[in-house]
Amino acid sequence: MSIADIIGFTAAVICSVSMTPQVIKIYRTKKTQDLSLGAFSVLATGLFLWFVYGLLIHSIPVIAGNAIGASFTLYIIIMKIRHG
Amino acid sequence: MSIADIIGFTAAVICSVSMTPQVIKIYRTKKTQDLSLGAFSVLATGLFLWFVYGLLIHSIPVIAGNAIGASFTLYIIIMKIRHG
Repeated sequence: MSIADIIGFTAAVICSVSMTPQVIKIYRTKKTQDLSLGAFSVLATGLFLWFVYGLLIHSIPVIAGNAIGASFTLYIIIMKIRHG
Repeated sequence: MSIADIIGFTAAVICSVSMTPQVIKIYRTKKTQDLSLGAFSVLATGLFLWFVYGLLIHSIPVIAGNAIGASFTLYIIIMKIRHG
């Protein structure tokens, strides 16, 4: 594994889990007013495509990372629709 | 370019620009209360690492996409610190 691979892998892991504090905050406060439904909808689409890309290249880290990221984003979208 | 490459490239572009509606919303409303500073800080770190990865593998789409994404995220962080 090259330095580039390690940095790329770390970047993927960090981005995948990045919305965890946002999910926790929404779970606690049930407040989503300042969040943009458009932004998280676009993000969910992108993460889903990354997930499909992972399936096509048979990369477990890409599949797993983006499945987690897409699930978090979907939770944010559902809470945004529910709480406005 | 394979189908996988096209899907991966599309995913990268979509994820890079995904926070555009959030940036516009914050610019208009100046409201950031429901956003998680932690989430966007982690995201900025991840996008910066993707940017470094792009430099190391000499990939213009990865460099450009993540430079844009990191800039948007940095704007959200600055506005969050300023407006609370």
